[in-house]
Amino acid sequence: MRRSTLPRSRSRRGVQFGLVALVALAAVLLVPASALADATDLKKSIAGKLDLSVGVNTTWVIVAGSLVMFMQAGFAFLEIGFSRAKNAGTVVAKILTNFSIAAVAWWAIGFMFAFSGPAGSFIGHEGGAFFTHMGPYVEVVKGVANYHPHFPVMDLSNATIESKWFFQFVFCAVSLAIVWGTTLERIKFGVYIIYSLVFASVIYPIGAHWVFGGGFLQQGHWLGTSIAGMQDFAGSTAVHLIGASGAFAALLLLGARKGKYGPDGKPRAIPGHNMPLFGLGVLILWLGWFGFNPGSTLNAADGRFAEILLITNLAAAAGVLAAVATARIKTKNIDIGMAGNGAIAALVAITAPSGYIEIWAAPIVGAVAGVIVVLGVYFVDKYIDDPVGALSAHGMAGIWGTLSCGLFTAPRLAQYNAFGDPKGGLFYSGHFTQLAAQAIGFTIAFAFVFSASFAVFWMIKKTFGLRVTEAEEDAGLDISEHGMYGYPEQFIPAPELIGAAPAGTAPAGGPSLATGKEVPA
Amino acid sequence: MRRSTLPRSRSRRGVQFGLVALVALAAVLLVPASALADATDLKKSIAGKLDLSVGVNTTWVIVAGSLVMFMQAGFAFLEIGFSRAKNAGTVVAKILTNFSIAAVAWWAIGFMFAFSGPAGSFIGHEGGAFFTHMGPYVEVVKGVANYHPHFPVMDLSNATIESKWFFQFVFCAVSLAIVWGTTLERIKFGVYIIYSLVFASVIYPIGAHWVFGGGFLQQGHWLGTSIAGMQDFAGSTAVHLIGASGAFAALLLLGARKGKYGPDGKPRAIPGHNMPLFGLGVLILWLGWFGFNPGSTLNAADGRFAEILLITNLAAAAGVLAAVATARIKTKNIDIGMAGNGAIAALVAITAPSGYIEIWAAPIVGAVAGVIVVLGVYFVDKYIDDPVGALSAHGMAGIWGTLSCGLFTAPRLAQYNAFGDPKGGLFYSGHFTQLAAQAIGFTIAFAFVFSASFAVFWMIKKTFGLRVTEAEEDAGLDISEHGMYGYPEQFIPAPELIGAAPAGTAPAGGPSLATGKEVPA
Amino acid sequence: MRRSTLPRSRSRRGVQFGLVALVALAAVLLVPASALADATDLKKSIAGKLDLSVGVNTTWVIVAGSLVMFMQAGFAFLEIGFSRAKNAGTVVAKILTNFSIAAVAWWAIGFMFAFSGPAGSFIGHEGGAFFTHMGPYVEVVKGVANYHPHFPVMDLSNATIESKWFFQFVFCAVSLAIVWGTTLERIKFGVYIIYSLVFASVIYPIGAHWVFGGGFLQQGHWLGTSIAGMQDFAGSTAVHLIGASGAFAALLLLGARKGKYGPDGKPRAIPGHNMPLFGLGVLILWLGWFGFNPGSTLNAADGRFAEILLITNLAAAAGVLAAVATARIKTKNIDIGMAGNGAIAALVAITAPSGYIEIWAAPIVGAVAGVIVVLGVYFVDKYIDDPVGALSAHGMAGIWGTLSCGLFTAPRLAQYNAFGDPKGGLFYSGHFTQLAAQAIGFTIAFAFVFSASFAVFWMIKKTFGLRVTEAEEDAGLDISEHGMYGYPEQFIPAPELIGAAPAGTAPAGGPSLATGKEVPA
Repeated sequence: MRRSTLPRSRSRRGVQFGLVALVALAAVLLVPASALADATDLKKSIAGKLDLSVGVNTTWVIVAGSLVMFMQAGFAFLEIGFSRAKNAGTVVAKILTNFSIAAVAWWAIGFMFAFSGPAGSFIGHEGGAFFTHMGPYVEVVKGVANYHPHFPVMDLSNATIESKWFFQFVFCAVSLAIVWGTTLERIKFGVYIIYSLVFASVIYPIGAHWVFGGGFLQQGHWLGTSIAGMQDFAGSTAVHLIGASGAFAALLLLGARKGKYGPDGKPRAIPGHNMPLFGLGVLILWLGWFGFNPGSTLNAADGRFAEILLITNLAAAAGVLAAVATARIKTKNIDIGMAGNGAIAALVAITAPSGYIEIWAAPIVGAVAGVIVVLGVYFVDKYIDDPVGALSAHGMAGIWGTLSCGLFTAPRLAQYNAFGDPKGGLFYSGHFTQLAAQAIGFTIAFAFVFSASFAVFWMIKKTFGLRVTEAEEDAGLDISEHGMYGYPEQFIPAPELIGAAPAGTAPAGGPSLATGKEVPA
Repeated sequence: MRRSTLPRSRSRRGVQFGLVALVALAAVLLVPASALADATDLKKSIAGKLDLSVGVNTTWVIVAGSLVMFMQAGFAFLEIGFSRAKNAGTVVAKILTNFSIAAVAWWAIGFMFAFSGPAGSFIGHEGGAFFTHMGPYVEVVKGVANYHPHFPVMDLSNATIESKWFFQFVFCAVSLAIVWGTTLERIKFGVYIIYSLVFASVIYPIGAHWVFGGGFLQQGHWLGTSIAGMQDFAGSTAVHLIGASGAFAALLLLGARKGKYGPDGKPRAIPGHNMPLFGLGVLILWLGWFGFNPGSTLNAADGRFAEILLITNLAAAAGVLAAVATARIKTKNIDIGMAGNGAIAALVAITAPSGYIEIWAAPIVGAVAGVIVVLGVYFVDKYIDDPVGALSAHGMAGIWGTLSCGLFTAPRLAQYNAFGDPKGGLFYSGHFTQLAAQAIGFTIAFAFVFSASFAVFWMIKKTFGLRVTEAEEDAGLDISEHGMYGYPEQFIPAPELIGAAPAGTAPAGGPSLATGKEVPA
Repeated sequence: MRRSTLPRSRSRRGVQFGLVALVALAAVLLVPASALADATDLKKSIAGKLDLSVGVNTTWVIVAGSLVMFMQAGFAFLEIGFSRAKNAGTVVAKILTNFSIAAVAWWAIGFMFAFSGPAGSFIGHEGGAFFTHMGPYVEVVKGVANYHPHFPVMDLSNATIESKWFFQFVFCAVSLAIVWGTTLERIKFGVYIIYSLVFASVIYPIGAHWVFGGGFLQQGHWLGTSIAGMQDFAGSTAVHLIGASGAFAALLLLGARKGKYGPDGKPRAIPGHNMPLFGLGVLILWLGWFGFNPGSTLNAADGRFAEILLITNLAAAAGVLAAVATARIKTKNIDIGMAGNGAIAALVAITAPSGYIEIWAAPIVGAVAGVIVVLGVYFVDKYIDDPVGALSAHGMAGIWGTLSCGLFTAPRLAQYNAFGDPKGGLFYSGHFTQLAAQAIGFTIAFAFVFSASFAVFWMIKKTFGLRVTEAEEDAGLDISEHGMYGYPEQFIPAPELIGAAPAGTAPAGGPSLATGKEVPA
């Protein structure tokens, strides 16, 4: 199933895709039916009788994508667990709203920008906006079946393009979820809405396109030169580092939670309110990763995904053990949060190399990530208030995972959906070629996403504002943004808990009952 | 895979199925082994070597069914989140008990009534009671393979009949779960047991048979006339409206929770105790719907299910955004409960049309449902105490979804496991044919289920009683029905928390310790 | 797909596997890369073009294994729900750490011991240590395809060996999780680390090898005689009783929680703190069992797994109903914990016979288990403090399930991956042959695991110690072992909740703030 050539773009339309993007964004809110036009644009040739492998591959991609979708619950509960009780409910509204914005934006233009051709481009623009029915598609070029000629990296299998659309959408949604954990307990809800729309429409699609959507980093053809293509099997950079880069930009402009740093400038712990729910989040994420990495084969017929799952699981296990040991040395405690973050960091790190390395390398990649995340959390905490450790678990571990391809990629796997150095990583080839490609790749991706995100957040800060007022932060986001506590019985005296509005909504005057003071609207 | 004719009934036995039903109900508790007889009744012809597509389709149906089964956890946590803490534990016992009753009843007679032939009938009675081993079955009639000739709508694929049995059972269990959310915090536990048995044995099977089990509404042949067949791909009416109809009957006889309406008759909010767990419920339900709708293809080999999943997800996203916006306009808050209910309502609505519409219509169906559920909750709340908003999210949205087929069904999909107007919905055909079939269909289904349920609940009310005493309602159902709080440490002083019985059971005298007064047995 | 002969061992190497084991354990921490050597040892002959059934079967095995992996969350929340709030967080660290230890140990040597050949042996030693890439493998012997000749029981299908490795690993992890629930609230965290390593490396692999890994109990050839082979389709003995046997050994040496038994020696209830989370655990476990039993076919192409799932679900339902009824008679309450434990016990019991019985027998097996677990919990509670009822739900129900094969095994299924009496169980054959094999089998497995575990725990007790101090038990394991409460806001005054260390870690001096006294390190 290895693919040696990318199909060439055949219809170079949509040169002014920038304009298209703006029109598209407006259109999505107005005339979605017009999207129908796009479908007829693609020459479809549905095979009379489908090969059964279409069903097999599609089933696996859909199952894997469903597991990745459920990672939204994983991120939600990781964040809820690490929040204080007064800020627990808002995470639910946040996850639902952001996931939904991303779904619509991805449908409108995100998928086109990220995964349509031409191959090697800076942005995809060959089709897929307002994605509509395509069905099975096969075009044979030079004796090679291209299932989706306008979506260059989609032909790892003949799974239906609809299943691949979904699988890639939930990746975008994961990347977006990573941005937010770190902004807990002080960001305005409206910021989510604005940034999510831009992120899922433009920032993530462009970054993902470069790294694993058929773009120039993946192919190693750029600036007129030709180097080894970057390897990022399932997104240590394309999903996790991109998410962490957005988070980093937000953090710099948002600042720390009230009380995080003492008068002496030293960080103080603000423990989350619910370790069991944090644990639920970690276990759901771990499960979700069984879709994330093995699903990135887009293929079940070749049987490779099982090995990738095994690699993923072994790395995660090593990450937990390394993080627990490192934290034990530093704090004399078996730190629950660090055990969980060790798993996450290792899973993030193994994401890039999972398709390229042998099993023996997996525990090494995972264990190093487990050490990195603990040291990273302590280091970052001195300067930046990152409540869930996203900069370490997704950023630093994402960088480590990306680089690890340059060390461990096995020659037999080096070309698996990639244009890397066929001699493999440093430990096999003795060459720094792949390592250099990885370093250049993550640097460019980081630089782009950080800059674009910083610009967006800066504009939000100057207009709408990033941060709730101090009074709102004291009262908690649940009551101030949503009109009701996530755990009402913990904060509101029982006799006042029966208010004057429907279930699930705020009682009239609820806020003042609860906090004893007026909360700004 | 489109099926143009339903296999005709070949063995018209079981005319007195009413009697059979009673005997069957008794038999299930006494002599299940006698069920063996039924199996030999079916002429089995297991193909010497199975086509591999059997495995492919069965895998998908089983995976989809497992996701739908997990929706029980979704309903449980949606209800737990919307309950007060003193009534949180009972939901666990409720879900486990009702799901179990439904499983046994479905096995005994429910599946036969719902899905066996003859085609176009008022009730299925050709086989499947005390369901037993059948294995792969193929009978070729007029050159068309009928995999399960006695189960007319089961031949969308050659998946094993066992997998289809399971898939349809979890649908029944979802419908049952919908009945209960709205009765929270005041219903007697015993009511569940009686109604669940009737619902899963008779009410749901008959309603489902009419709508999507091969019955007269689906086929459009009834009262001597022939109209367009009703379209309900995965059960906006057959599962969700049926559940909500049962809930409506219960509510009218049960009445509001104590304190819900003030002396002036105005509704007062009774906030649920745990928004994070509510969010968990919503996310599990969303995940479950990836089995619910796409699984209703019963088929992976044709690859269609991926598109249906995409449609489902896009509708849900639009529902969240529309509900958040609508609630924001009404309450000035980002209402967490409404965000979740917007997702649920949109998922309910898209259930009927998901197999019949193009992608562009999905966000429209979902967004309208999101608006409906918010306005519906506020409207219903004035008159009826529906703590989880089931009448709106499953009832009104279910009706909207059913009707939406009459508007959006695409001609290319109109005959997909259906006998609808081949010209499609109003927006394609300009005809009201399909819309009329949809309106007639949901009305009949509602009328039947509401009447039958009202009769059952009325009989329960007159004999066993529907409602706990006021003292029990004050104390909470956990302690009054189950002998122990769901969160003991919140209600019982620590020194008294070590009682005199095994783990997980009530300490002797627990109730009085906890509430300070005697609780009726 | 029935297999009538086990492939013979071809390369009898590794006689001194005891030595190998020790070296391997050391090696795993030092030179995992050396594991590469092992792979070349196997003669691989990858088919030029894979049969599509490889993909189908592998997909199902991976999906099933992922469901089983998620059972870790099920066990975690069952245990969290049954713990007091001061001991809730530790369960998260425990599950993550133990699962990770097991993953590494299973990779290093556990899988080899459990599932490699030769067939009929006392311990597997033909390969698979430091498991590494094998890929699809086919060797045709006497016209029969053996997919994995060095792994005798792995050829129920041609799913990739990597998927089977993973599936069997999560079984080991389930067995390990069963050990711990019963040691809640008083065991030292370090005990987990030591015992988990031994259990996943040696104890479980040997026990599982005997029962369903191709060993002497499964084949019925031992002590020079030949009896019927033991039947244990998915592990009532091999997974559940083995786990419960380890738990029993731990309990005898660990003792009861402080306050569990009054001055009169009578047991007192110590209610868990969170029934909703207990319910989450039960529902996740129920879902996980849809992978556990049906996945043990290792096969989707033959379509059998759907029937096994149906059997599993029906048994669980009967278990809930029987347990609820039994507890209602005993306590006059609908006991929430017993409803859940009824489900678990029935699922445990149906695990062994699920592949061998007809559907009608499933509710009987489940209902009996539901009665057993309730009576068992009350009986055990008089003498031993087993907070989650593991001895009853996994031990007694596991024995019942194992024996039930001797009663209900149908002749048509008796040889399905087994060497049982082809005439079936007592109720079919009138012979006690199979029942005797079952009784001998579980007795031997129990005796081995209990003895080995007792020895390990005894050594730990004499050196490191099993139990926290009384002061630590009073304070709770969260604060004493992990430096921070699982629910800080419940125990620590708000102004002191902002401490001096990073998120998720203990504030300096936290313990004393929280408990008002010094907690031993």
